Amino acid sequence: MNTITNGGVTSAAGFMAATTAANIKYTNRDDLAIVSSERDCSAAAMFTQNQVAAAPVLVDKEVMATEPKLRAVVINAGNANACTGQIGMENARQTQVTAATSLDCDPSQIFVMSTGVIGVQLPMDKMGAGIRAAVPHLSPANGNAAARAIMTTDTVPKETAVSIQINNKTVTIGGMAKGVGMIHPDMATMLSLLTTDAAIAPALLDGYLKTAVSHSFNRISIDGDTSTNDTVLLLANGASGVAIGDGNAAFERALTAVCTTLAHKIVRDGEGATKFVEIAVTGAMDDKAAHTIANTIAISPLVKTAFAGSDANWGRIMMAAGRAGVPFDQHQTELWIGVDGDGLCLVATGTPTDYAEADAAAIFAQPAFKIHLIIGTGDGVSVVWTSDLTHEYVSINADYRS
Amino acid sequence: MNTITNGGVTSAAGFMAATTAANIKYTNRDDLAIVSSERDCSAAAMFTQNQVAAAPVLVDKEVMATEPKLRAVVINAGNANACTGQIGMENARQTQVTAATSLDCDPSQIFVMSTGVIGVQLPMDKMGAGIRAAVPHLSPANGNAAARAIMTTDTVPKETAVSIQINNKTVTIGGMAKGVGMIHPDMATMLSLLTTDAAIAPALLDGYLKTAVSHSFNRISIDGDTSTNDTVLLLANGASGVAIGDGNAAFERALTAVCTTLAHKIVRDGEGATKFVEIAVTGAMDDKAAHTIANTIAISPLVKTAFAGSDANWGRIMMAAGRAGVPFDQHQTELWIGVDGDGLCLVATGTPTDYAEADAAAIFAQPAFKIHLIIGTGDGVSVVWTSDLTHEYVSINADYRS
Repeated sequence: MNTITNGGVTSAAGFMAATTAANIKYTNRDDLAIVSSERDCSAAAMFTQNQVAAAPVLVDKEVMATEPKLRAVVINAGNANACTGQIGMENARQTQVTAATSLDCDPSQIFVMSTGVIGVQLPMDKMGAGIRAAVPHLSPANGNAAARAIMTTDTVPKETAVSIQINNKTVTIGGMAKGVGMIHPDMATMLSLLTTDAAIAPALLDGYLKTAVSHSFNRISIDGDTSTNDTVLLLANGASGVAIGDGNAAFERALTAVCTTLAHKIVRDGEGATKFVEIAVTGAMDDKAAHTIANTIAISPLVKTAFAGSDANWGRIMMAAGRAGVPFDQHQTELWIGVDGDGLCLVATGTPTDYAEADAAAIFAQPAFKIHLIIGTGDGVSVVWTSDLTHEYVSINADYRS
Repeated sequence: MNTITNGGVTSAAGFMAATTAANIKYTNRDDLAIVSSERDCSAAAMFTQNQVAAAPVLVDKEVMATEPKLRAVVINAGNANACTGQIGMENARQTQVTAATSLDCDPSQIFVMSTGVIGVQLPMDKMGAGIRAAVPHLSPANGNAAARAIMTTDTVPKETAVSIQINNKTVTIGGMAKGVGMIHPDMATMLSLLTTDAAIAPALLDGYLKTAVSHSFNRISIDGDTSTNDTVLLLANGASGVAIGDGNAAFERALTAVCTTLAHKIVRDGEGATKFVEIAVTGAMDDKAAHTIANTIAISPLVKTAFAGSDANWGRIMMAAGRAGVPFDQHQTELWIGVDGDGLCLVATGTPTDYAEADAAAIFAQPAFKIHLIIGTGDGVSVVWTSDLTHEYVSINADYRS
């Protein structure tokens, strides 16, 4: 697997992007992106499990129900088109129609994504003008611009691409994502668009996406809150001339790598985050139990403030594990921390070892470190990634709308 | 029902308290409290559901299994005796023995509670000296001193007492509690001790306590984290000469009032808290569904930072409700806010009304306000109480151990 330097959503053959300053909410920056494919794409998508799903999510679910041949995705930043009722639904559909007219395809071949403030209607005049202004500029060179245009409180664009060799031909998978808060994806993350030039039937594409997402976007948490707009879309246009069948391990690994890279970028750019922490739980009854515990540690405010304070406060990690609702014997637990793998054992048989506090503090002072909690002798394993809870997180979110 | 001015854990007849500076962790303050009864008490207790239960919790569960006739409770602050293994268990049992010797009763008549840092062994010499120093000072006058001695990062003592008339005799119920962080009680809160001079059989006492706790301590959340040491104990010594039978509504209401007052005091003193917010959810399928949604709103970091910023950011409230895992139709939702009852409707049929932002902001700027989310036409109802998430919360918890 080869990582493409500066790769992104247009690295795969046949994909193009364009951006424009539609002035939907932000001024002096591009806030609307279109990603299109020169040929029809098979598609797989995963959406937020939030009951308060945004209008674009509801419209896209209708689109995906028909096994679409997608041609383009329209993404706007600054307005989530959530809690907008019937008007919001009509606005999402009108966005499809406008884009389809400019791109000369059917509205059902347009996928829409929105991110930003909840409860405000999309300014459709600006959306229409923006789409019409952007389409003439569609080019493979604009992948990075697209990743920037979809940012809200993100401080850096999030994109990546890899290539693999299959039957002596090159298959490329690229993608971009946005999101720094309201991050606790249930079946998907804030917004992510993945592209590949492989040819893959929709049913298979769905399986590949589910596997990749379950190992990446579904394993990150910044604040435990799940967005109304979470969407991840994978487009496959076949431009590489390579057809991918069922169970292609190389493709699965590459797609998972792309998703994992994007998921990590989201955590590293978490609102106010100064630490990137990997939390592994092993020895559980099953993977689900391990995941529940890892996740509960990852969203604990007391654990996350300890990360922020570089305080190796393992008592809070034990507390969070214990409140996950999963039975285990505290006297069998072991807790390890390290920068790269299991470096220092803090707890054995449920009680503290005689480790030196300075050694533990030195690890927690790093910008990235790992925590490994062993809770028994079972086979269940899970790894999740999270950030710390800082003053800056409070500042960003106590002021967001103003 | 009559609220007793400056009432507390020794307001009920026959209860006494004593405190001392045992120097367990703090210096220059009392950190050990003993509450005793001049006669045997029937008792009911509820404990943390955390899998990592502290040694005193494990020992007290053994005590409660024998339908004890309790005589006293020993409480220390500064050390939780949690994650302390077999030595911690022996230390909790030794505390019982020391107190029983001083009080001339059986060790099984002593209940122990600890709160403070996790993972450090109790200094048993200091515990022993403290108990022996305190016992001679047991007096009904020391209820307030006891409420102060059990504080950790609490900024105010939390105590209350009420009296009711039953058969022309006065029955008094009093109590104290501590806790400001790691507050998301599952079956109980941090530490609370309730006393009454009614005579009540243990089996009935248990029922009264469960009802009261389910309407009070189990409906508060500061940070969504559940302590390893949560314990609430209700002692009934019969000194009033009044026997309470099954289904005594006046007693149930009075006990629930005491618990609710203490629970609210905990939320108002929440770490870094500047707001006290009541969250009511109605129209749910059943009470459990309503509670799950109310609770998810109460622990959402994005909702709580909006409270801190006095930002009536209702989109986050809708988001949090939607991620609770309870199905509902967003287009049937209604959201009201107010200082006293439903004042202002922000959302109807799932979309914003044309309310004035200044009116909403004025309500959120108050130190206490109410949120009422109607999610459908069902009969399910729940009310919970929570605080905001502030810079100060992060400061307190990023530095706690140092």
